[in-house]
Amino acid sequence: MCAVIGLAGFANAAAQDVFGDCRGRWMEIAGQTIPELTVTEVSPVSVVEVVADTAAFQGWRCIPKAGLDTLSEANFRRIRSVTLDFGRHLTGRLKFRLKTLGDVMDAPVKLKFVFGETPAEMAEPFDPWRGSLSRGWMQDEMLTVDAADCDILLDRRMAFRYLRIELFGGNFDFALDGVRCLATTSAGELKTALDNSCPKIIRDINDVSLATLRECMQTVYEDGPKRDRRLWIGDLYLESLAGRYSYQNHQLTKHCLYLFAALTDNNGRLLADLFEHPEPHPQWGTYCFTYSLLYSSILLEYLNDTGDIGTARDLWPVVKVQMEDAVRRVRDNGWVDASRAWLFFDHAVLDAEVPFQGAVMFALEQTCELARKIGCGDQVEQWSKLQAKIRKGARKRYYNPREHLMLSPGGAPASVHAQIWAIIGGILSPKEGARALETVLKKEDAVRPASPYAMHYLLEAMLRCGMNEAARSTMIEYWGGMVRKGADTFWEVYDPADDFRAPYGFYPLNSYCHAWSCTPTYFIFKYPEVFQK
Amino acid sequence: MCAVIGLAGFANAAAQDVFGDCRGRWMEIAGQTIPELTVTEVSPVSVVEVVADTAAFQGWRCIPKAGLDTLSEANFRRIRSVTLDFGRHLTGRLKFRLKTLGDVMDAPVKLKFVFGETPAEMAEPFDPWRGSLSRGWMQDEMLTVDAADCDILLDRRMAFRYLRIELFGGNFDFALDGVRCLATTSAGELKTALDNSCPKIIRDINDVSLATLRECMQTVYEDGPKRDRRLWIGDLYLESLAGRYSYQNHQLTKHCLYLFAALTDNNGRLLADLFEHPEPHPQWGTYCFTYSLLYSSILLEYLNDTGDIGTARDLWPVVKVQMEDAVRRVRDNGWVDASRAWLFFDHAVLDAEVPFQGAVMFALEQTCELARKIGCGDQVEQWSKLQAKIRKGARKRYYNPREHLMLSPGGAPASVHAQIWAIIGGILSPKEGARALETVLKKEDAVRPASPYAMHYLLEAMLRCGMNEAARSTMIEYWGGMVRKGADTFWEVYDPADDFRAPYGFYPLNSYCHAWSCTPTYFIFKYPEVFQK
Repeated sequence: MCAVIGLAGFANAAAQDVFGDCRGRWMEIAGQTIPELTVTEVSPVSVVEVVADTAAFQGWRCIPKAGLDTLSEANFRRIRSVTLDFGRHLTGRLKFRLKTLGDVMDAPVKLKFVFGETPAEMAEPFDPWRGSLSRGWMQDEMLTVDAADCDILLDRRMAFRYLRIELFGGNFDFALDGVRCLATTSAGELKTALDNSCPKIIRDINDVSLATLRECMQTVYEDGPKRDRRLWIGDLYLESLAGRYSYQNHQLTKHCLYLFAALTDNNGRLLADLFEHPEPHPQWGTYCFTYSLLYSSILLEYLNDTGDIGTARDLWPVVKVQMEDAVRRVRDNGWVDASRAWLFFDHAVLDAEVPFQGAVMFALEQTCELARKIGCGDQVEQWSKLQAKIRKGARKRYYNPREHLMLSPGGAPASVHAQIWAIIGGILSPKEGARALETVLKKEDAVRPASPYAMHYLLEAMLRCGMNEAARSTMIEYWGGMVRKGADTFWEVYDPADDFRAPYGFYPLNSYCHAWSCTPTYFIFKYPEVFQK
Repeated sequence: MCAVIGLAGFANAAAQDVFGDCRGRWMEIAGQTIPELTVTEVSPVSVVEVVADTAAFQGWRCIPKAGLDTLSEANFRRIRSVTLDFGRHLTGRLKFRLKTLGDVMDAPVKLKFVFGETPAEMAEPFDPWRGSLSRGWMQDEMLTVDAADCDILLDRRMAFRYLRIELFGGNFDFALDGVRCLATTSAGELKTALDNSCPKIIRDINDVSLATLRECMQTVYEDGPKRDRRLWIGDLYLESLAGRYSYQNHQLTKHCLYLFAALTDNNGRLLADLFEHPEPHPQWGTYCFTYSLLYSSILLEYLNDTGDIGTARDLWPVVKVQMEDAVRRVRDNGWVDASRAWLFFDHAVLDAEVPFQGAVMFALEQTCELARKIGCGDQVEQWSKLQAKIRKGARKRYYNPREHLMLSPGGAPASVHAQIWAIIGGILSPKEGARALETVLKKEDAVRPASPYAMHYLLEAMLRCGMNEAARSTMIEYWGGMVRKGADTFWEVYDPADDFRAPYGFYPLNSYCHAWSCTPTYFIFKYPEVFQK
């Protein structure tokens, strides 16, 4: 009886924690690979006025005005409010001092700060609150300052280009002096450069890509330094791809891979996102199957970039658990059951079942490739075979050769996403894929990509089908559109037809520096013949 | 010629800085004597509701309500606002944590805090601002919290008993957990105790005196931990007197004496108040002659308490310069010129010339006593003689024996203050003084004390004249009045007839824990036969 209890206990323990001691060790490695942040003191470049302008992005424009030269001498008690432009997107903490102009400071001063990534955030009132996410995301702060002539450092890290400072309480003569951002990034040195012969719009898109990535590279690959300020698997994948052709901070990728591994649940399943503070912890309950499946691709790309076979082998069990979860969903006739799972492809509303077939196929292919490279090919023999079965089953169930499209059997509207993933997953041949994409993009009622995240995969699919010109023009139209609208960094959500499109009910909630939009640099350098000419 | 230049240079240098190298050394000693603060974690004692009540002090009363037991488990997302009563006045920083109740915190939370020494500060809106001092004195803060389940410490030190916390932005389920004040003081152990046979009202007054002093004893003797949070000579004097009969932290007195000495101006003149941060510095330009004259009394009392003759000798030059400044004002016929000087005796508007005579006489007497005790009697021989001259001159110029009052020759209204200081300075005999006080206190149109600071000197004068019963009843009526109105600590300004009396246009600006009101404990222990029976 003791033995039985012991056995049951062991079995439970195994069920409770498939990775056993590994997770502790993985967390140790994550702890050892936290990247150092470089800190740069950045000064504002001008004082600006935010003015309404229907021609400007979101209806607001910043106009430079005089005052920066004299700011550190001018009596802020009289000025009362100033808006500063730091010239580029920054992620960091604000430093400043109140410089006494004559008499000593004999009472506290209350200052209000509003930080914004865009001019509109400087102008649009936040209250009464209309967003569906927390009001806490808005970057406004109040501070009571007790001492002058010493550096004051705001506690909270901000993501911004613009900053308004308002005097709220205080009646002594002082100047705002030494206003700086202690900007942080773990990006390090840029390892690539475009030739000047490269078209200007491509160079501009590349620059904004690089800025976006740099700002999101902190102690993890954040999704956005304003919001959500944390690590998601989907963003990590795209950031590591863009990183290959830019900052090449592969240790950051390793750090993030280990964090996710250490924070799997007791069944070994990955959570979609994680937080670093106060201790690393995942967003419990948030499983995103399409993100979990990308983990193998991130590890494979990391292995390709670094040759670090030890890490790949160490984390292989994590890849395997995610893949096994997917394989359990393969039905007898070959299609993959998409029910009871969060399958994220885009902010757009779409039937995720069809693109999911491609996502599983892509994961199988990447996983098998990874296994072979680390000498675990024998563990994936069954999965290699499974690919043909799924391909056949998915084509039968979803591909309409008459319409040249992957379609939902339930009659949901056709989506660009379904074609993209059928191409990436090898369900459609390049030729079929090109036809499908051309068809669906012309289709009026088709569901189209609604985020740079989905646009990334559209470009990927186009390039896989040899639609080089379409890929190029899509990049120039979409990412170039943000550049033309004044983007310093690329946005979480961008709709060329609607400047106010935002995912959460109030457009200043949009993250205007969002990692998943940073991949143009990946395409530009991976396919120079397509983009650099 | 060289010699002349050299001489001129030396003379100028001397004129520019009479204390030369001493000030650097004094600052070093001040640095070595910074007291240690003890930190005590204090929990709230109840959740309260602030309700209007015309019978209550300033029209507001805190009523305990249920909720404290469950606060650390209750969903603050639903509660949204709570007012806590910490049961006593505290000076310190707030610590708390957001405890997740279920899902992880996935967005920042904005909290608003309002700290108050009195119930009214919890209820009275601060905006639009009506005070004549900075809005910055009001203890309201906004904070954006990014992480849950870890201690959050507010940067700013607050002085409060009550605290309202409001949810301003944030939509996840959390409880306010571990709400504590890290209360600080340098008071140390209480060295005295009243016998239980002592009347309850006296014991209560004594307790509130001690709390007031304890809260003001930080790294300097502050005037008030809410406002002005700094060291004034006048408060230092009264705090050190009260300290003798309570905490006996004489090193704190020494620290403050050295700070003032180190921060004299180039002519050796004391500034009336000083700030500790970011570096010790005085309020340049703020000379208060009556305060400068009290420096000798503080040093004398310190010497009496400690026997530290080294310090007294070291700082004797500072005393001398202040006294010389006063002596230069003595006119041929004996009275002291009060023009071109800030002479503070009270918040009440009064002709300061008459009480100034007494203040100079008191300083002369104290200075001569100090000089004799440290072996510098020879330096003050002239000043000893001067006392008789001033006494004679002042009596001739100001004393009206028919009215039995010290009166302004300019016809300004009679003031209690003029009588008080004539008694303390020995211009009137005890008998004359008692007659003068009795007369002036009955006089309808006389200027009366408008602050506990002036009330202290009234008690002092009464006791010098043998008006023991009047002193006792004055203490019970005045300080006891605050006790009956619910004071945890004594106030900067208290008018028994007007709960809203405040010096700066908006009554919540009043400092409700103010050092200059802490001296009942001094009187109670110095004159046990008067107060303890």
